[in-house]
Amino acid sequence: MVSFECDYTEGAHEQIIRRLVETNMEQTPGYGSDPYTASAKEKIRKAIGKSEADIYFLIGGTQTNSTVIATMLNGYEGVVSVVSGHINAHEAGAVEYTGHKVLTVPSHEGKMHASDLRAYLEGFYKEGSYEHMVFPGMAYISFPTEYGTIYTKQEITDIHDVCQEFNIPLFIDGARLGYGLMAHSCDLTIKDLADLCEVFYIGGTKVGALFGEAVIFPKGNAPKHFFTSIKAHGALLAKGRMLGIQFDTLFTDDLYFKIAGHAIEMADLIKEVFTEKGYRFFKDSPTNQQFIIMPDAKMEELKSKVRFEFWEKYDETNSVVRFASSWATKKENVLMLRDIL
Amino acid sequence: MVSFECDYTEGAHEQIIRRLVETNMEQTPGYGSDPYTASAKEKIRKAIGKSEADIYFLIGGTQTNSTVIATMLNGYEGVVSVVSGHINAHEAGAVEYTGHKVLTVPSHEGKMHASDLRAYLEGFYKEGSYEHMVFPGMAYISFPTEYGTIYTKQEITDIHDVCQEFNIPLFIDGARLGYGLMAHSCDLTIKDLADLCEVFYIGGTKVGALFGEAVIFPKGNAPKHFFTSIKAHGALLAKGRMLGIQFDTLFTDDLYFKIAGHAIEMADLIKEVFTEKGYRFFKDSPTNQQFIIMPDAKMEELKSKVRFEFWEKYDETNSVVRFASSWATKKENVLMLRDIL
Amino acid sequence: MVSFECDYTEGAHEQIIRRLVETNMEQTPGYGSDPYTASAKEKIRKAIGKSEADIYFLIGGTQTNSTVIATMLNGYEGVVSVVSGHINAHEAGAVEYTGHKVLTVPSHEGKMHASDLRAYLEGFYKEGSYEHMVFPGMAYISFPTEYGTIYTKQEITDIHDVCQEFNIPLFIDGARLGYGLMAHSCDLTIKDLADLCEVFYIGGTKVGALFGEAVIFPKGNAPKHFFTSIKAHGALLAKGRMLGIQFDTLFTDDLYFKIAGHAIEMADLIKEVFTEKGYRFFKDSPTNQQFIIMPDAKMEELKSKVRFEFWEKYDETNSVVRFASSWATKKENVLMLRDIL
Amino acid sequence: MVSFECDYTEGAHEQIIRRLVETNMEQTPGYGSDPYTASAKEKIRKAIGKSEADIYFLIGGTQTNSTVIATMLNGYEGVVSVVSGHINAHEAGAVEYTGHKVLTVPSHEGKMHASDLRAYLEGFYKEGSYEHMVFPGMAYISFPTEYGTIYTKQEITDIHDVCQEFNIPLFIDGARLGYGLMAHSCDLTIKDLADLCEVFYIGGTKVGALFGEAVIFPKGNAPKHFFTSIKAHGALLAKGRMLGIQFDTLFTDDLYFKIAGHAIEMADLIKEVFTEKGYRFFKDSPTNQQFIIMPDAKMEELKSKVRFEFWEKYDETNSVVRFASSWATKKENVLMLRDIL
Repeated sequence: MVSFECDYTEGAHEQIIRRLVETNMEQTPGYGSDPYTASAKEKIRKAIGKSEADIYFLIGGTQTNSTVIATMLNGYEGVVSVVSGHINAHEAGAVEYTGHKVLTVPSHEGKMHASDLRAYLEGFYKEGSYEHMVFPGMAYISFPTEYGTIYTKQEITDIHDVCQEFNIPLFIDGARLGYGLMAHSCDLTIKDLADLCEVFYIGGTKVGALFGEAVIFPKGNAPKHFFTSIKAHGALLAKGRMLGIQFDTLFTDDLYFKIAGHAIEMADLIKEVFTEKGYRFFKDSPTNQQFIIMPDAKMEELKSKVRFEFWEKYDETNSVVRFASSWATKKENVLMLRDIL
Repeated sequence: MVSFECDYTEGAHEQIIRRLVETNMEQTPGYGSDPYTASAKEKIRKAIGKSEADIYFLIGGTQTNSTVIATMLNGYEGVVSVVSGHINAHEAGAVEYTGHKVLTVPSHEGKMHASDLRAYLEGFYKEGSYEHMVFPGMAYISFPTEYGTIYTKQEITDIHDVCQEFNIPLFIDGARLGYGLMAHSCDLTIKDLADLCEVFYIGGTKVGALFGEAVIFPKGNAPKHFFTSIKAHGALLAKGRMLGIQFDTLFTDDLYFKIAGHAIEMADLIKEVFTEKGYRFFKDSPTNQQFIIMPDAKMEELKSKVRFEFWEKYDETNSVVRFASSWATKKENVLMLRDIL
Repeated sequence: MVSFECDYTEGAHEQIIRRLVETNMEQTPGYGSDPYTASAKEKIRKAIGKSEADIYFLIGGTQTNSTVIATMLNGYEGVVSVVSGHINAHEAGAVEYTGHKVLTVPSHEGKMHASDLRAYLEGFYKEGSYEHMVFPGMAYISFPTEYGTIYTKQEITDIHDVCQEFNIPLFIDGARLGYGLMAHSCDLTIKDLADLCEVFYIGGTKVGALFGEAVIFPKGNAPKHFFTSIKAHGALLAKGRMLGIQFDTLFTDDLYFKIAGHAIEMADLIKEVFTEKGYRFFKDSPTNQQFIIMPDAKMEELKSKVRFEFWEKYDETNSVVRFASSWATKKENVLMLRDIL
Repeated sequence: MVSFECDYTEGAHEQIIRRLVETNMEQTPGYGSDPYTASAKEKIRKAIGKSEADIYFLIGGTQTNSTVIATMLNGYEGVVSVVSGHINAHEAGAVEYTGHKVLTVPSHEGKMHASDLRAYLEGFYKEGSYEHMVFPGMAYISFPTEYGTIYTKQEITDIHDVCQEFNIPLFIDGARLGYGLMAHSCDLTIKDLADLCEVFYIGGTKVGALFGEAVIFPKGNAPKHFFTSIKAHGALLAKGRMLGIQFDTLFTDDLYFKIAGHAIEMADLIKEVFTEKGYRFFKDSPTNQQFIIMPDAKMEELKSKVRFEFWEKYDETNSVVRFASSWATKKENVLMLRDIL
């Protein structure tokens, strides 16, 4: 059955697969000290316009979030996130497992408002007993957010300005980064992102790779011995070149952006089809996740024909459902929706 | 340059690669709830003769060790290992990072003696102030060990008996399991292992897979909600079928054992070549890692022709070096050694 | 300057001090294995009507909360608290430092509603991806709350019923327990509390002792080797009898309840004085903490005459301030308020 | 029964008790922001000759060790201790509980040799795969050691020089500091100690106080927000003045050193008595702990007359026993030994 359930149902982009096959029996040293990894790093440095960037490849999102956050925070600090942030809601407490609290501010369709962050930070230091509380030591946002929304350049600039003022790093979770950057309404480039944060990652798992997240410290500001911290978190891949080859491929001839762009086209088509059929959207998402309001009866009927995700109840007789496109979505499958809706 | 540096220099066995290619564009649900993973589990259950076994697939060895150990121990417990155990020496403190101490007993060429374990446990409970100390809550051994040695069935039985007597689980790190089981002198089967411990894992990373370790709780004794613990440790692979496909392939037609057997043949050939050339062995290793005593001058010369690992100084003018074979070692490369030694 | 700032400004009740002096040069074994500690435990067992209770003495509240919570939770679990709960707001992340998330439900003047707890727990298990989330593994409430409010017997019964239904323990933070139990409107006894939870503690630090919290597992249900967990948390007092002597004194002739009752009388008097002077109360608190609305100008003026705590802004020209009574509050000091208000 | 079992069997020195009584009903703010604490810090700064020192008061030794170590180490670091070090052997894994490994070097009657430390550090950085290992991030020694032995000034200087060379802090556990400094053979002053380490503590629990350890960062080098780290470790005392008053008293008119000197006199007398009676000593301890070789039969007989600690078996018919003196030891009790030996 065709699935629009999420953006990690397939394997990897064919060019990645091809290169994994071609290089399969080569012998290289482990843990990322191979030439493919070196090449991937160079290509990413070029793409983000930061020759001094420190880059590390990890395997998955939760792992990356907890490793980065635990390593960059001091013992007395927590990380500020919106309530709906992935680290707060859906990572099984991986951040807390490392000993740090997730401090929350309100979510605005998944986004953090700079004003909320400022209010939190100002409020914290005004509090008489703040030394008895968890210091806000980092801000975490996702781009795009868990609701498919994206920040404008101004919005991230504002958040970053607040962070700078309070001297805390900004960490951008880019598990779906490509889909955010290729959204029609996006006014940010990857170079802008690299300017506007202390650490971010380029998600591979959801954008064309079998797995892999490229963690970037744009100013060469990786924590000391970050390699060892990765190892201690159980996040070090023995055959590190698997990550190098995948990202080297994704950052050759802009493949990463092209395939992310394809997902956006497919999301546009999904929107078109649903609109045509008279459906309303729960949120106006510019990225690869589309949230549609659907009568419960229809939803039940549809389940036997196509896979998608129930998101939440909308009202007594309607639900919100999510249809996700990805780098791998086939146009004919979207068009097929027309026939079954 | 040809490398005998370690057993994870290549990608994956061609049959694995082929299946990854074939299945690449299929759509499956994530996190191990796909049919390939289910099939792999069934095949492993058959191979170990335990239909009730709980099986989970993780990505790498250090991650597996720390996740299993942290999840099975109580807060007041540590894990007993030989000094040279991988968890004690080469995992960047990943076990301690989860809050648990590694308690050590002497290493006998990498192996734990049941008598040392018993002495430790008896000594602990005799100690007047043991309630002020870390309780020994698990025994950890590796098979084969970090020195390439293997346990006899009797030796593991003895260790397991001590564990049973003191009511602690035995955990067997099988990162190189195949190479141990296929050693000529091995009198243990994988079914025996499953009988003689509470948890063990079948290493894929070093035996034919791109990555992956199959964690087995033979008696259906997985800790409650182990899935969530895997997630909290950042060890959950989104595209879980990558692990399923690999282990399904490895456990089809005994591929895992066949390719491990090939590594042993190649290790035999390495032994033969070095013996022929008059070299002595540091240890008599029955598995895929061979430890050779080599004059320092020769070692330096050889470095320009072939890759291998310096292990330790032997005496003033000689060193111990390690040559490792693997599932991927080519016979012609070993024979080439003859010409350059 | 007289202080109503909090309830731990003085040392200990004179009877405690007297016994510390009397016993000072006696020699007893350490870590709580002395006769005073044994006697204190017996008296508490009698007071709560549970001869089978396990009792441990710790030093302070934050320490007690993190030690109890970390020891009773499984690795994949967090603790449910109201947002304003002490563990969530004012313990510097001590719970998270042990690796566990604090999961929050709304606060109703500091209290948890059973219906909110039920909604949280039901919602959790209805969530499709709950295995990717932190399991709610315990409920935490404080009695009285951080806002001085108290639960009725029915309210705690309802919360406990929900806990039982979902098979999670209820933990009651009794840092100010005496002040709650002695409130005029309190319909609960300490025996009721012991029936209605799996663990609670009797606060000494704020009710007559120099320091000390008596942790009680009413059904003899202390976690295995809890003594060692206390030690590992750095919470074990070498000269344990200091705790034993204090609690033995507090539970001789109902001293604990008598001195808590005195604090309530003094709180009544504080209420009377402020009411007389025309002040309004922010909350109607039945315990030793009184929250008064005060014009900012008056507040500033008063600061030079008496110590109290600024709580929060009420509106543009008024603030909420807290006046706390305690076991040590002198009547003449409260009456003095009359003159300076 | 008279006890020589350890050095924390009594309460506190009478001058401390007197001041606790005198100040009991005073009202002071909490958490160490009271004038007694301020005064105690000033007196200690004078005693150690460091006006810039940062000083914090914690409650007990294990708590102090784990809080200091966890706060000063980076995530990828462990602490180097001798095998017999208190943190390695008798603290229930409190250091590991914070996520850090205790790395061990040989014990020489409880002492660390600078040469062993150097060998460890040099060996670590020579190891090819050291990035996969726990970085040695601090050296920990105790003064006096767990065996009652003390370092010479030269020995500590040598250890500190190695630390400086490798850029790691030296931490000196002074749980029994007074007894070391007052030993006849001690050639170190407390000012020397403050020069020769980055952090140390002055033990109160075993030297005259009810409880309390004064942690000193001699160069004003306390970790940022150390107060909050203390809180997060559950180590913050609400009525902080209890610590202030005790240390203020101990550092008035050299009381700390005088009462420690008394313990040494009493240890001398213990030595004299046992020597007189023909006993041999297991170790030549210059401090308050004396280790005597005693026939097992005699040991059993003596147990009914006096309390002391069994240390270990010496040979088939003899044991090593420990007799400890302290600030509180009465001369008549030691002389009584003469009659019963």
